[in-house]
Amino acid sequence: MSEEVPRPAERAKRLPRAVRERQILDAAVSVFSRYGYHSASMDEISEVAGVSKPMIYTYLGSKEDLFGACIRREATRLLEAVQDGIKPDLPPDMQLWHGLRAFYRFVADYRESWTVLHRQAMTVGGTFAAEITDMRTRAIELVAALVVSAGTRKGLGEQAEFSGAGLSAALVGAAESLADWALDHPDVSDGVLASWLMNLVWLGFNDLVEGEIWKPSESDD
Amino acid sequence: MSEEVPRPAERAKRLPRAVRERQILDAAVSVFSRYGYHSASMDEISEVAGVSKPMIYTYLGSKEDLFGACIRREATRLLEAVQDGIKPDLPPDMQLWHGLRAFYRFVADYRESWTVLHRQAMTVGGTFAAEITDMRTRAIELVAALVVSAGTRKGLGEQAEFSGAGLSAALVGAAESLADWALDHPDVSDGVLASWLMNLVWLGFNDLVEGEIWKPSESDD
Repeated sequence: MSEEVPRPAERAKRLPRAVRERQILDAAVSVFSRYGYHSASMDEISEVAGVSKPMIYTYLGSKEDLFGACIRREATRLLEAVQDGIKPDLPPDMQLWHGLRAFYRFVADYRESWTVLHRQAMTVGGTFAAEITDMRTRAIELVAALVVSAGTRKGLGEQAEFSGAGLSAALVGAAESLADWALDHPDVSDGVLASWLMNLVWLGFNDLVEGEIWKPSESDD
Repeated sequence: MSEEVPRPAERAKRLPRAVRERQILDAAVSVFSRYGYHSASMDEISEVAGVSKPMIYTYLGSKEDLFGACIRREATRLLEAVQDGIKPDLPPDMQLWHGLRAFYRFVADYRESWTVLHRQAMTVGGTFAAEITDMRTRAIELVAALVVSAGTRKGLGEQAEFSGAGLSAALVGAAESLADWALDHPDVSDGVLASWLMNLVWLGFNDLVEGEIWKPSESDD
């Protein structure tokens, strides 16, 4: 038999730092999403987390640091959720469909995360807005890669590359705007939202990659 | 001959208040678009406008009031430009096409206005963000009316009304996001941008109003 050193009672009561940090971040996301950055108080975050204010400052720094940590954690979660949703062996339209469903599922499951990322971070501005812009850029690149890959399948890679970046920016804006709308319409499922967006945009992409284009029907410039 | 009262020399030098206010607002939009609300200084606005700081405060109030006046003037300009661009007798897709072209022409002609409205106002937050949200809501309603009118022509008004609000929110988000992209690509014309967006979205709307829908090609849920 081995000689076990008994764990001191005070150590058993302590939670690992990682668990405490998660509790603090969960509480912070909830409070920031409800009140916005400026009106959120560290007192309330401390109360919701069940963690003392000094411990919050020790673990995660100032309110600004804490907000930054929330943004980074939620942005990473969102991008991972979307990337996990995409099945890379499927055709581009099906990849986009799965990506959109994963996105709307995330928004439905983590309303507070989306609110902090999309509504609060932009209104705070500064470096937070820059981080969100970064995340959008990565999302746009992800979509652009799908468009170019769809175009290349049809031998239209060059054309798809020309307008693909702009159209991908448009699609990401459409997806975000519909997500905001969905926050106020929780009865509409992620599958329905993703289908709407596919109807709205994929035939456009499809047209692009088929080499067909919509033209105005009258003869002005 | 009539007896003309000579105008006093000091009156001749004065500009009407409306002209002064326009000069101040033009300067303020330019400075706010470059530095953002928080970093913009009243000293610089005064210098660019060629109007003394006390006169700015007398005419348009505090920096916050001035920013609010900029937002309201530019939002009104933008909505008027889009509404003037739409020709109400044309079919819905052509109305949307003209509306989009007018929108992208506005963004190209008034880059600073768009920057203040879209990039700066949201990052300032508070009542300014609320005014922008208001403007977006009006734009979404404008698009939704076109979708419902297109759907009703095909006897699909009810279906168009169900998903039309969400899809219109998506289209407005797409248009905004593409406008942001266009700020960094000034060589792409308003006609090209509007065509891209029509290709991207109209066939989607068209499908909706034709009763056709995009469906995922595999058999998962």
